[in-house]
Amino acid sequence: MQTLFRYNWMVREEWYKWCENLPEAELLKPRTGGAGGILKTLFHIADVEWSWIMSIQGKPDFQEDFEQYRNLQKVRDLDATFRPEVEQFVRAWNEGLERKIFEDRRPDGSMVTDAWGEVMRHVIAHEIHHVGQLSIWAREVGKTPVSANLIGKGLMDSLPGRL
Amino acid sequence: MQTLFRYNWMVREEWYKWCENLPEAELLKPRTGGAGGILKTLFHIADVEWSWIMSIQGKPDFQEDFEQYRNLQKVRDLDATFRPEVEQFVRAWNEGLERKIFEDRRPDGSMVTDAWGEVMRHVIAHEIHHVGQLSIWAREVGKTPVSANLIGKGLMDSLPGRL
Repeated sequence: MQTLFRYNWMVREEWYKWCENLPEAELLKPRTGGAGGILKTLFHIADVEWSWIMSIQGKPDFQEDFEQYRNLQKVRDLDATFRPEVEQFVRAWNEGLERKIFEDRRPDGSMVTDAWGEVMRHVIAHEIHHVGQLSIWAREVGKTPVSANLIGKGLMDSLPGRL
Repeated sequence: MQTLFRYNWMVREEWYKWCENLPEAELLKPRTGGAGGILKTLFHIADVEWSWIMSIQGKPDFQEDFEQYRNLQKVRDLDATFRPEVEQFVRAWNEGLERKIFEDRRPDGSMVTDAWGEVMRHVIAHEIHHVGQLSIWAREVGKTPVSANLIGKGLMDSLPGRL
Protein backbone atom coordinates (compact mmCIF):
# COMPACT_ATOMS: atom_id res chain seq x y z
CA MET A 1 0.00 0.00 0.00
CA GLN A 2 2.68 2.46 1.08
CA THR A 3 4.80 1.74 -1.99
CA LEU A 4 2.03 2.79 -4.35
CA PHE A 5 1.28 5.96 -2.40
CA ARG A 6 4.97 6.87 -2.36
CA TYR A 7 5.13 6.14 -6.09
CA ASN A 8 2.22 8.52 -6.64
CA TRP A 9 3.79 11.28 -4.56
CA MET A 10 7.09 10.96 -6.43
CA VAL A 11 5.40 11.04 -9.82
CA ARG A 12 3.18 13.96 -8.76
CA GLU A 13 6.23 15.95 -7.68
CA GLU A 14 7.82 15.26 -11.08
CA TRP A 15 4.67 16.53 -12.79
CA TYR A 16 4.79 19.74 -10.73
CA LYS A 17 8.40 20.22 -11.90
CA TRP A 18 7.35 19.39 -15.46
CA CYS A 19 4.68 22.10 -15.23
CA GLU A 20 7.33 24.72 -14.46
CA ASN A 21 8.39 24.51 -18.09
CA LEU A 22 4.95 25.09 -19.54
CA PRO A 23 3.34 28.53 -19.92
CA GLU A 24 0.53 29.08 -17.43
CA ALA A 25 -1.95 29.44 -20.28
CA GLU A 26 -1.22 25.85 -21.31
CA LEU A 27 -1.59 24.64 -17.72
CA LEU A 28 -5.00 26.29 -17.50
CA LYS A 29 -6.21 25.62 -21.04
CA PRO A 30 -9.44 23.59 -21.14
CA ARG A 31 -8.81 20.12 -22.58
CA THR A 32 -11.01 17.22 -23.64
CA GLY A 33 -11.58 14.49 -21.06
CA GLY A 34 -10.54 13.87 -17.49
CA ALA A 35 -10.71 16.83 -15.13
CA GLY A 36 -10.54 19.15 -18.16
CA GLY A 37 -7.03 20.59 -17.95
CA ILE A 38 -3.48 19.96 -16.73
CA LEU A 39 -3.38 22.04 -13.55
CA LYS A 40 -6.98 21.25 -12.75
CA THR A 41 -6.08 17.55 -12.86
CA LEU A 42 -3.22 18.01 -10.41
CA PHE A 43 -5.51 19.99 -8.11
CA HIS A 44 -8.14 17.25 -8.44
CA ILE A 45 -5.63 14.50 -7.59
CA ALA A 46 -4.48 16.23 -4.39
CA ASP A 47 -8.04 17.18 -3.46
CA VAL A 48 -9.47 13.69 -3.95
CA GLU A 49 -6.63 11.99 -2.06
CA TRP A 50 -7.08 14.30 0.89
CA SER A 51 -10.87 14.18 0.80
CA TRP A 52 -11.03 10.40 0.90
CA ILE A 53 -8.54 10.10 3.70
CA MET A 54 -10.39 12.69 5.72
CA SER A 55 -13.78 11.19 4.93
CA ILE A 56 -13.05 7.64 6.00
CA GLN A 57 -11.81 9.02 9.31
CA GLY A 58 -15.02 11.02 9.68
CA LYS A 59 -13.11 14.30 9.47
CA PRO A 60 -14.36 17.36 7.54
CA ASP A 61 -13.83 17.19 3.81
CA PHE A 62 -12.23 19.85 1.60
CA GLN A 63 -14.90 21.89 -0.19
CA GLU A 64 -13.06 24.61 -2.11
CA ASP A 65 -12.96 24.63 -5.85
CA PHE A 66 -10.30 25.02 -8.51
CA GLU A 67 -11.24 28.63 -9.29
CA GLN A 68 -9.29 29.68 -6.18
CA TYR A 69 -6.19 27.71 -7.23
CA ARG A 70 -5.55 28.58 -10.87
CA ASN A 71 -1.80 28.80 -10.41
CA LEU A 72 0.90 26.13 -10.12
CA GLN A 73 2.31 27.44 -6.86
CA LYS A 74 -1.12 27.61 -5.24
CA VAL A 75 -1.78 23.98 -6.12
CA ARG A 76 1.62 22.91 -4.80
CA ASP A 77 1.01 24.85 -1.59
CA LEU A 78 -2.39 23.27 -1.13
CA ASP A 79 -0.92 19.82 -1.72
CA ALA A 80 1.85 20.57 0.81
CA THR A 81 -0.80 21.56 3.35
CA PHE A 82 -2.60 18.25 2.89
CA ARG A 83 0.41 15.97 2.70
CA PRO A 84 1.52 15.60 6.34
CA GLU A 85 -1.83 14.27 7.49
CA VAL A 86 -2.20 12.03 4.43
CA GLU A 87 1.30 10.67 4.90
CA GLN A 88 0.74 10.03 8.57
CA PHE A 89 -2.39 8.04 7.77
CA VAL A 90 -0.68 6.02 5.03
CA ARG A 91 2.35 5.23 7.20
CA ALA A 92 0.11 4.01 10.00
CA TRP A 93 -1.81 1.73 7.64
CA ASN A 94 -2.08 -1.88 8.73
CA GLU A 95 -3.86 -5.06 7.73
CA GLY A 96 -6.42 -4.58 10.48
CA LEU A 97 -7.84 -1.53 8.70
CA GLU A 98 -8.45 -3.31 5.40
CA ARG A 99 -12.03 -4.34 6.08
CA LYS A 100 -13.19 -1.49 8.28
CA ILE A 101 -16.42 -0.18 6.83
CA PHE A 102 -16.79 3.34 5.50
CA GLU A 103 -20.39 4.48 5.24
CA ASP A 104 -20.69 7.00 2.48
CA ARG A 105 -23.84 9.10 2.36
CA ARG A 106 -24.37 10.19 -1.23
CA PRO A 107 -25.87 13.57 -2.24
CA ASP A 108 -29.21 11.83 -2.95
CA GLY A 109 -29.33 10.61 0.66
CA SER A 110 -28.60 6.97 -0.14
CA MET A 111 -25.90 5.13 1.82
CA VAL A 112 -23.10 3.14 0.22
CA THR A 113 -20.51 1.12 2.11
CA ASP A 114 -16.91 0.52 1.10
CA ALA A 115 -14.10 -1.28 2.89
CA TRP A 116 -11.25 1.05 3.89
CA GLY A 117 -8.91 -1.12 1.85
CA GLU A 118 -11.04 -0.47 -1.21
CA VAL A 119 -11.01 3.26 -0.59
CA MET A 120 -7.22 3.31 -0.31
CA ARG A 121 -6.77 1.38 -3.55
CA HIS A 122 -9.37 3.60 -5.19
CA VAL A 123 -7.28 6.65 -4.25
CA ILE A 124 -4.14 5.00 -5.66
CA ALA A 125 -5.82 4.04 -8.93
CA HIS A 126 -7.50 7.44 -9.18
CA GLU A 127 -4.17 9.26 -9.33
CA ILE A 128 -2.49 6.85 -11.73
CA HIS A 129 -5.50 7.05 -14.05
CA HIS A 130 -5.45 10.85 -14.13
CA VAL A 131 -1.69 10.90 -14.62
CA GLY A 132 -2.20 8.73 -17.70
CA GLN A 133 -4.44 11.51 -18.99
CA LEU A 134 -1.76 14.12 -18.30
CA SER A 135 0.66 12.07 -20.39
CA ILE A 136 -1.59 12.38 -23.45
CA TRP A 137 -1.93 16.14 -23.03
CA ALA A 138 1.85 16.39 -22.60
CA ARG A 139 2.34 14.80 -26.03
CA GLU A 140 -0.36 17.06 -27.47
CA VAL A 141 1.66 20.13 -26.39
CA GLY A 142 4.79 18.53 -27.86
CA LYS A 143 6.46 17.63 -24.56
CA THR A 144 7.78 14.35 -23.17
CA PRO A 145 5.59 13.28 -20.24
CA VAL A 146 6.96 12.26 -16.86
CA SER A 147 7.80 8.56 -16.82
CA ALA A 148 5.13 6.35 -15.24
CA ASN A 149 7.64 3.61 -14.41
CA LEU A 150 7.42 2.29 -10.89
CA ILE A 151 10.54 0.15 -11.14
CA GLY A 152 13.89 1.89 -10.93
CA LYS A 153 12.76 4.45 -8.33
CA GLY A 154 14.25 2.57 -5.36
CA LEU A 155 10.81 2.42 -3.79
CA MET A 156 11.50 -0.80 -1.91
CA ASP A 157 15.19 -0.30 -1.13
CA SER A 158 14.95 1.03 2.39
CA LEU A 159 11.43 0.23 3.40
CA PRO A 160 11.57 -1.58 6.69
CA GLY A 161 7.95 -2.48 7.20
CA ARG A 162 4.79 -2.61 5.21
CA LEU A 163 4.88 -2.46 1.47
CA MET B 1 -2.07 -6.97 -4.59
CA GLN B 2 -4.79 -9.30 -5.84
CA THR B 3 -7.47 -6.62 -5.53
CA LEU B 4 -5.65 -4.29 -7.90
CA PHE B 5 -5.00 -7.03 -10.45
CA ARG B 6 -8.66 -8.04 -10.34
CA TYR B 7 -9.64 -4.39 -10.69
CA ASN B 8 -7.47 -4.15 -13.79
CA TRP B 9 -8.93 -7.29 -15.33
CA MET B 10 -12.48 -6.07 -14.73
CA VAL B 11 -11.77 -2.66 -16.21
CA ARG B 12 -9.94 -4.22 -19.17
CA GLU B 13 -12.93 -6.45 -19.91
CA GLU B 14 -15.18 -3.38 -19.82
CA TRP B 15 -12.87 -1.65 -22.31
CA TYR B 16 -13.04 -4.64 -24.66
CA LYS B 17 -16.84 -4.41 -24.49
CA TRP B 18 -16.65 -0.64 -25.03
CA CYS B 19 -14.55 -1.27 -28.14
CA GLU B 20 -17.34 -3.36 -29.66
CA ASN B 21 -19.26 -0.12 -30.24
CA LEU B 22 -16.47 1.65 -32.07
CA PRO B 23 -15.67 1.13 -35.75
CA GLU B 24 -12.47 -0.83 -36.27
CA ALA B 25 -10.92 2.14 -38.07
CA GLU B 26 -11.21 4.17 -34.85
CA LEU B 27 -9.72 1.35 -32.82
CA LEU B 28 -6.74 1.21 -35.15
CA LYS B 29 -6.36 4.94 -35.86
CA PRO B 30 -2.95 6.31 -34.83
CA ARG B 31 -3.29 8.69 -31.88
CA THR B 32 -0.94 11.05 -30.08
CA GLY B 33 0.79 9.71 -26.98
CA GLY B 34 0.81 6.41 -25.12
CA ALA B 35 1.06 3.28 -27.22
CA GLY B 36 -0.33 5.26 -30.17
CA GLY B 37 -3.87 3.93 -30.53
CA ILE B 38 -6.80 2.36 -28.70
CA LEU B 39 -6.46 -1.30 -29.67
CA LYS B 40 -2.69 -1.09 -29.66
CA THR B 41 -2.88 0.09 -26.03
CA LEU B 42 -5.06 -2.86 -25.02
CA PHE B 43 -2.65 -5.22 -26.79
CA HIS B 44 0.26 -3.50 -25.03
CA ILE B 45 -1.38 -3.84 -21.60
CA ALA B 46 -1.97 -7.59 -21.99
CA ASP B 47 1.46 -8.10 -23.52
CA VAL B 48 3.34 -6.21 -20.81
CA GLU B 49 1.47 -7.90 -17.97
CA TRP B 50 2.21 -11.32 -19.36
CA SER B 51 5.81 -10.50 -20.26
CA TRP B 52 6.70 -9.30 -16.77
CA ILE B 53 5.09 -12.25 -15.07
CA MET B 54 6.90 -14.65 -17.37
CA SER B 55 10.18 -12.77 -17.08
CA ILE B 56 10.42 -12.71 -13.29
CA GLN B 57 9.85 -16.46 -13.30
CA GLY B 58 12.61 -16.88 -15.87
CA LYS B 59 10.13 -18.14 -18.47
CA PRO B 60 10.27 -17.18 -22.17
CA ASP B 61 8.84 -13.77 -22.96
CA PHE B 62 6.26 -12.90 -25.64
CA GLN B 63 7.93 -11.45 -28.70
CA GLU B 64 5.21 -10.93 -31.29
CA ASP B 65 4.15 -7.50 -32.36
CA PHE B 66 0.85 -5.67 -32.79
CA GLU B 67 0.90 -6.00 -36.58
CA GLN B 68 -0.35 -9.59 -36.17
CA TYR B 69 -3.20 -8.52 -33.83
CA ARG B 70 -4.92 -5.57 -35.50
CA ASN B 71 -8.41 -6.78 -34.63
CA LEU B 72 -10.40 -6.65 -31.38
CA GLN B 73 -11.12 -10.38 -31.30
CA LYS B 74 -7.48 -11.26 -31.88
CA VAL B 75 -6.41 -9.10 -28.94
CA ARG B 76 -9.08 -10.60 -26.71
CA ASP B 77 -8.04 -14.10 -27.73
CA LEU B 78 -4.41 -13.37 -27.02
CA ASP B 79 -5.31 -11.94 -23.62
CA ALA B 80 -7.43 -15.02 -22.88
CA THR B 81 -4.44 -17.21 -23.75
CA PHE B 82 -2.24 -15.35 -21.29
CA ARG B 83 -4.73 -14.97 -18.47
CA PRO B 84 -4.77 -18.40 -16.79
CA GLU B 85 -1.04 -18.38 -16.12
CA VAL B 86 -1.07 -14.74 -15.01
CA GLU B 87 -4.02 -15.37 -12.71
CA GLN B 88 -2.40 -18.44 -11.23
CA PHE B 89 0.70 -16.45 -10.42
CA VAL B 90 -1.25 -13.56 -8.89
CA ARG B 91 -3.41 -15.87 -6.77
CA ALA B 92 -0.34 -17.61 -5.42
CA TRP B 93 1.29 -14.30 -4.48
CA ASN B 94 2.50 -14.05 -0.89
CA GLU B 95 4.52 -11.73 1.29
CA GLY B 96 7.58 -13.96 0.97
CA LEU B 97 7.89 -13.08 -2.72
CA GLU B 98 7.94 -9.30 -2.18
CA ARG B 99 11.70 -8.96 -1.97
CA LYS B 100 12.83 -11.73 -4.29
CA ILE B 101 15.28 -10.23 -6.72
CA PHE B 102 14.64 -10.13 -10.44
CA GLU B 103 17.79 -9.60 -12.49
CA ASP B 104 16.89 -7.85 -15.69
CA ARG B 105 19.46 -7.87 -18.46
CA ARG B 106 18.87 -4.84 -20.63
CA PRO B 107 19.42 -4.77 -24.41
CA ASP B 108 22.73 -2.93 -23.88
CA GLY B 109 23.99 -5.83 -21.74
CA SER B 110 23.76 -4.00 -18.42
CA MET B 111 22.04 -5.65 -15.46
CA VAL B 112 19.32 -4.01 -13.38
CA THR B 113 17.71 -5.55 -10.33
CA ASP B 114 14.15 -5.08 -9.12
CA ALA B 115 12.27 -6.63 -6.22
CA TRP B 116 9.41 -8.87 -7.35
CA GLY B 117 7.04 -6.68 -5.33
CA GLU B 118 8.17 -3.68 -7.36
CA VAL B 119 7.60 -5.50 -10.62
CA MET B 120 4.08 -6.49 -9.59
CA ARG B 121 3.16 -2.93 -8.62
CA HIS B 122 4.80 -1.69 -11.82
CA VAL B 123 2.48 -3.96 -13.82
CA ILE B 124 -0.55 -2.69 -11.90
CA ALA B 125 0.37 0.97 -12.38
CA HIS B 126 1.28 0.35 -16.02
CA GLU B 127 -2.24 -0.74 -16.87
CA ILE B 128 -4.03 1.99 -14.91
CA HIS B 129 -1.81 4.63 -16.54
CA HIS B 130 -2.58 3.40 -20.05
CA VAL B 131 -6.29 3.14 -19.28
CA GLY B 132 -6.19 6.81 -18.29
CA GLN B 133 -4.91 7.48 -21.80
CA LEU B 134 -7.77 5.46 -23.32
CA SER B 135 -10.22 7.63 -21.40
CA ILE B 136 -8.95 10.78 -23.14
CA TRP B 137 -9.19 9.18 -26.57
CA ALA B 138 -12.71 8.00 -25.71
CA ARG B 139 -13.77 11.61 -25.10
CA GLU B 140 -12.00 12.68 -28.29
CA VAL B 141 -14.18 10.29 -30.29
CA GLY B 142 -17.24 11.59 -28.43
CA LYS B 143 -17.83 8.53 -26.23
CA THR B 144 -18.12 8.11 -22.46
CA PRO B 145 -15.09 6.19 -21.20
CA VAL B 146 -15.30 3.14 -18.94
CA SER B 147 -15.40 4.20 -15.29
CA ALA B 148 -12.07 3.98 -13.50
CA ASN B 149 -13.72 3.68 -10.07
CA LEU B 150 -12.34 0.91 -7.93
CA ILE B 151 -14.98 1.29 -5.21
CA GLY B 152 -18.40 -0.14 -5.89
CA LYS B 153 -17.13 -3.17 -7.80
CA GLY B 154 -17.45 -5.57 -4.85
CA LEU B 155 -13.73 -6.32 -5.13
CA MET B 156 -13.30 -7.09 -1.46
CA ASP B 157 -16.67 -8.68 -0.75
CA SER B 158 -15.82 -12.32 -1.01
CA LEU B 159 -12.06 -12.36 -0.95
CA PRO B 160 -11.02 -14.82 1.70
CA GLY B 161 -7.28 -14.31 1.73
CA ARG B 162 -4.78 -11.83 0.50
CA LEU B 163 -5.82 -8.41 -0.72
